[in-house]
Amino acid sequence: MVSYGFAAVASLLAFALAACLSSWVRQQPPGGKEVNRIGGLIAQGARTFLRREYTLLGWFVLGASILIILFLPRPFWQGSIKDNLWLAAAYIAGAVFSGFAGYVGMAVATMANTRTAEAATKGKVPAFLTGFRGGAVMGMAVVGASLLGVTGVTFLTKDPTITLGFSLGASSLALFAKAGGGIFTKTADIAADLVGKVELDIPEDDPRNPAVIADNVGDNVGDVAGMGADLFDSHVASLSAALVLAASLDGGLGKNVAMVFAFAAAGLVASVVGVMAARLKENGDPTTALNNSTYTTTGLYVVLSAVITIIGGFNWLYWGATMVGLLVGTIIGISSNYFTNDRRKPVEQVARVSQSGPAFTIISGISYGLASVFPALVGIGVAALLSFSLTNGIVPETITDALFGIAMAAVGMLSIVGMVISNDAYGPIVDNARGLVEMANLGDRALDITDELDSAGNTVKAITKGFAIGAAGLTVISLLGAFMAEANDVLGAHAMALIKGFDVMNPRVFFGLLVGSAVPAVFSAMLMLGVNRNAERLVDEIHRQFKQIKGLKEGKADPEYDRCITIATEGALKELIPAGAMAIAVTFAVGFIGGIPAVGGFLAGNIVSGLLLALFMSNAGGLWDNAKKLVESGSFGGKGSAAHKAAVIGDTVGDPCKDTAGPSINTQITVVSLVASLAVGLFALFSLF
Amino acid sequence: MVSYGFAAVASLLAFALAACLSSWVRQQPPGGKEVNRIGGLIAQGARTFLRREYTLLGWFVLGASILIILFLPRPFWQGSIKDNLWLAAAYIAGAVFSGFAGYVGMAVATMANTRTAEAATKGKVPAFLTGFRGGAVMGMAVVGASLLGVTGVTFLTKDPTITLGFSLGASSLALFAKAGGGIFTKTADIAADLVGKVELDIPEDDPRNPAVIADNVGDNVGDVAGMGADLFDSHVASLSAALVLAASLDGGLGKNVAMVFAFAAAGLVASVVGVMAARLKENGDPTTALNNSTYTTTGLYVVLSAVITIIGGFNWLYWGATMVGLLVGTIIGISSNYFTNDRRKPVEQVARVSQSGPAFTIISGISYGLASVFPALVGIGVAALLSFSLTNGIVPETITDALFGIAMAAVGMLSIVGMVISNDAYGPIVDNARGLVEMANLGDRALDITDELDSAGNTVKAITKGFAIGAAGLTVISLLGAFMAEANDVLGAHAMALIKGFDVMNPRVFFGLLVGSAVPAVFSAMLMLGVNRNAERLVDEIHRQFKQIKGLKEGKADPEYDRCITIATEGALKELIPAGAMAIAVTFAVGFIGGIPAVGGFLAGNIVSGLLLALFMSNAGGLWDNAKKLVESGSFGGKGSAAHKAAVIGDTVGDPCKDTAGPSINTQITVVSLVASLAVGLFALFSLF
Repeated sequence: MVSYGFAAVASLLAFALAACLSSWVRQQPPGGKEVNRIGGLIAQGARTFLRREYTLLGWFVLGASILIILFLPRPFWQGSIKDNLWLAAAYIAGAVFSGFAGYVGMAVATMANTRTAEAATKGKVPAFLTGFRGGAVMGMAVVGASLLGVTGVTFLTKDPTITLGFSLGASSLALFAKAGGGIFTKTADIAADLVGKVELDIPEDDPRNPAVIADNVGDNVGDVAGMGADLFDSHVASLSAALVLAASLDGGLGKNVAMVFAFAAAGLVASVVGVMAARLKENGDPTTALNNSTYTTTGLYVVLSAVITIIGGFNWLYWGATMVGLLVGTIIGISSNYFTNDRRKPVEQVARVSQSGPAFTIISGISYGLASVFPALVGIGVAALLSFSLTNGIVPETITDALFGIAMAAVGMLSIVGMVISNDAYGPIVDNARGLVEMANLGDRALDITDELDSAGNTVKAITKGFAIGAAGLTVISLLGAFMAEANDVLGAHAMALIKGFDVMNPRVFFGLLVGSAVPAVFSAMLMLGVNRNAERLVDEIHRQFKQIKGLKEGKADPEYDRCITIATEGALKELIPAGAMAIAVTFAVGFIGGIPAVGGFLAGNIVSGLLLALFMSNAGGLWDNAKKLVESGSFGGKGSAAHKAAVIGDTVGDPCKDTAGPSINTQITVVSLVASLAVGLFALFSLF
Repeated sequence: MVSYGFAAVASLLAFALAACLSSWVRQQPPGGKEVNRIGGLIAQGARTFLRREYTLLGWFVLGASILIILFLPRPFWQGSIKDNLWLAAAYIAGAVFSGFAGYVGMAVATMANTRTAEAATKGKVPAFLTGFRGGAVMGMAVVGASLLGVTGVTFLTKDPTITLGFSLGASSLALFAKAGGGIFTKTADIAADLVGKVELDIPEDDPRNPAVIADNVGDNVGDVAGMGADLFDSHVASLSAALVLAASLDGGLGKNVAMVFAFAAAGLVASVVGVMAARLKENGDPTTALNNSTYTTTGLYVVLSAVITIIGGFNWLYWGATMVGLLVGTIIGISSNYFTNDRRKPVEQVARVSQSGPAFTIISGISYGLASVFPALVGIGVAALLSFSLTNGIVPETITDALFGIAMAAVGMLSIVGMVISNDAYGPIVDNARGLVEMANLGDRALDITDELDSAGNTVKAITKGFAIGAAGLTVISLLGAFMAEANDVLGAHAMALIKGFDVMNPRVFFGLLVGSAVPAVFSAMLMLGVNRNAERLVDEIHRQFKQIKGLKEGKADPEYDRCITIATEGALKELIPAGAMAIAVTFAVGFIGGIPAVGGFLAGNIVSGLLLALFMSNAGGLWDNAKKLVESGSFGGKGSAAHKAAVIGDTVGDPCKDTAGPSINTQITVVSLVASLAVGLFALFSLF
């Protein structure tokens, strides 16, 4: 009970800080007319996107809820209607909580960008603070809502399995926000470039281009709302998996459950303090300032969680497991940075070979992207091995204690997620501010300041992105543990033989492993092909506007920005649904063919190939982006050279990899893992082999 | 004993047919002076490559043999020196037998191409027969040598474990032939294009270009010798894995061992008959003629293996497992064909979007390549599941019987390998003949004929390639079974607890799974980056020759073709060794960290991600190649259009994917699996966790 209270209070603390920061940002000087006109269009477009997305999502959630009530966790005719209703309610709550946090964060971010631009005319310190605090609203809203939701569901139902439903709700939203937002943003980007730059030869960001606002909205939708939903999802999933395993160890809600809540609350408090501590001196380096906040948070979490272990009398080995998670997360972040940093060999090499033509840009980018998966996969593997070995034997004759250890490593890695999101959301805000400064001609000093702030955002982002992927990796491993715990619950209830694991020498497991590994590949292929199709639709609309709106080309009439946003949004959601449905349908097919062992293998294969492809795509995309920037900064011929043309092609290839497919794969894995855990009862009863 | 004799006789039959066909090809009219001059340069270059390759390979084999004598299967100070010596001898034999088959096949292929060109001036039938019989020499030499080697080793040592050593020798050669040949061929291709087409603006295949012969040699080296070594490797590996499992079931050399030899011999006899039956009518379709030979072989194998089952009194369920393998192999072949055939949607779509620029060519090619892995992975999974389920329970209370069932499915899939290689080697011979017809101006009729024959080769190749990948997939799964059998042998001998499988919930297994999945990614990245580096070296050499050889540019002096071939060869082998060493070193690292369970997971992860990446790269590469050809045939603007330029970039990206990295991954998986099986004793004794 104490830990519920602690968690609830910590959540409210995060909300309070979010409210304070939001009102602080609102009180900053709003800037001139031109800045506000453009900023207003972007903010309105973002709202349009979210409204459409949430409307369609609403129907999706409704349909899924009906299916849950009918079939999950067990078919309703087996007398489980009460459980099914709770699960559906938790599912809806997960989607609503995550959607709410995303909406608030996005609203503040699109308000903060104009104010950051205005502040940049005054100096670096106010601009930094406005950007950072605007981003921190998202960070605080996300962690507050996720912890409050998980706490509330557990408190009300006393059954951690139901938190998996809450998690599935959050994943559904993340699927729409991340994959849908990813398709949206690249659709708008490609269509705007194709018509604007290639056909009409008007500059980028020219307001006559009907897709230009959609393009700017895309950055917010993908990088702010999408990333927030993604980390909301990972945070909730790590907590749910840990809670299911803890309850299985405790035989109900006991000491280990309490520890999960207490540790999560400690991470949240540490993030609150870290956000409040963020400071920059007038001659200071913004990268250092951001990193200092992260160090403050991390250090405080180490101390707080140790104190909690003493007070609560928890096992120190679990504390050790969370430390393993934190440490390995940092290592993965540093290695991601190596492959995408423009001062390191990979980016420099890709830029250099671009002089021989675009084919070399692509081949070398694919090669370094493939090589980049190694340190991260080894890091996740080592984290799992260490945290398991540390905690195995706490309870004799079971491995649940050690699987819980892995889950605690994931909780540890995600403990500072509030800080990570704050840093991440800072990036697109200052990036947008930089664009506004340029478009509204706010002067060279403001441009220099926002340039410096933007560059700090990019550096920090590479590290936090590594953290996010590592955390997702450990989380899905602990979801695999949660799946087994759920399976044994169901098997025990039907007096069937329990399973001890998923042996790859069992061909049902191996069958699942192979099929599971193919799913992320097909999923990402569907998303990327969806971007191409959707861009064609948007190009048609842009052509229509130029034909039908008189005076548009001459700048005498305004384009219908909203219509472009609507078309890109609806197309994005239309392309996303088959991909998501495919992943879920294959999960059910594997379960009904090979039963629980096949699903275990399926999840393992899905995790392995999903992490591989996500890392490959994210890092290759980031590398191509920075190689282009390196050439543009004057290396290997600079702007307009053959190397530049090749690097631009590389960047265009990398865009859907890093902004659409790569980051959506994490969500796909989580969705599939949760669906499998919730549907395990069906697979136990009906399967072919 | 009877089955040894049967297998030995069948091998000799294959050799006899190879000798007849080779002398038949030699007796065909050799053609005019110009054809023979160019053909002679290519043949000489191919010999130069093979000589260099075999010399370096000799040192490698020597070093590896010393390590084997010292440490494998057990450290020599444990009194196993006799076993170690046998293993080293088998290892050397494996490399020598495979090298011999490759040398003979290559020699005949480079003789057959000029004769096919000459025959094409007379008519379709003689040209077809010359091309097909030239390729069939390779097919017969490979299956004869592989079966004879495995039979001989088993007969002499009475210990199927030693056949794993023979298999490792074949894999070592395949690594050099496939990965080394792959780097060589793309090095020469890229360097010849960069200097010839881009810098000097001389046509492709211009004899003044010092790299032009290296480029033509590359096609033979990669497609004939490399492919032959690859399938030699797969064939031997499938037999070795089946023999190890059979001996484990039999408790020595018993009925199941005899069955493996009898079935392999039946496949060889069926291939011999199929090759002899190949006929083409003057108005017939060469694709149909090739397919008819394959059907004859397949049908005959079905009947022969059934007869053998009756005579030998073998279990019908194992016959069923081989039929599952044959059937699924065919299905995978058909699905590969869908993704790379220019009359199907994927190729057509990629060609169409090329009109919008190269970035779209690349994105859509990557997408379809990723999607293409699904049917093949599901097919391999279903084949494993079906063959296991069919044969599980033949021997009570063990799964070895069913793992042997999977191995028999792989044997079934590879039973017609003699026919597959014959069809595959036919392709480059007629492709080369087509080039010779063009270069030596042998007339339009000959060109039409070789065009038609070439196109049939491409169609058939797509299907046989699917077969090869599917077979490799099942083979490595049965190698995983062989690894477990070997592990239990060692553990039993040391009175340690036996292992029953590799449970992914065991974090040592999961750690291995993650690391194993990263290895093929890093391996292929190293090969592709090696191509880039090696091409730079060759470009330097071409520049040197144009500078130092007077009259070269004017066509008054001959370039030093040999020097280019030597540089490309040595560079290729230099780039290949770190990649191979990395894969082996990581295997040992995982084994010494996590012990046998980690290695089991490592192999599973290696198989899953290796198959995924191999299918992705092979199919994406084939797709880009055919999209380019589709545009060149006049679609979407035809030659010289924007779509054509984009499609050429796609093809250049696809080249190292499909000719260097993709096909080498199979070999990498086999090498690692065999090394793990042979070193299992070390991992049992020394490991950290």
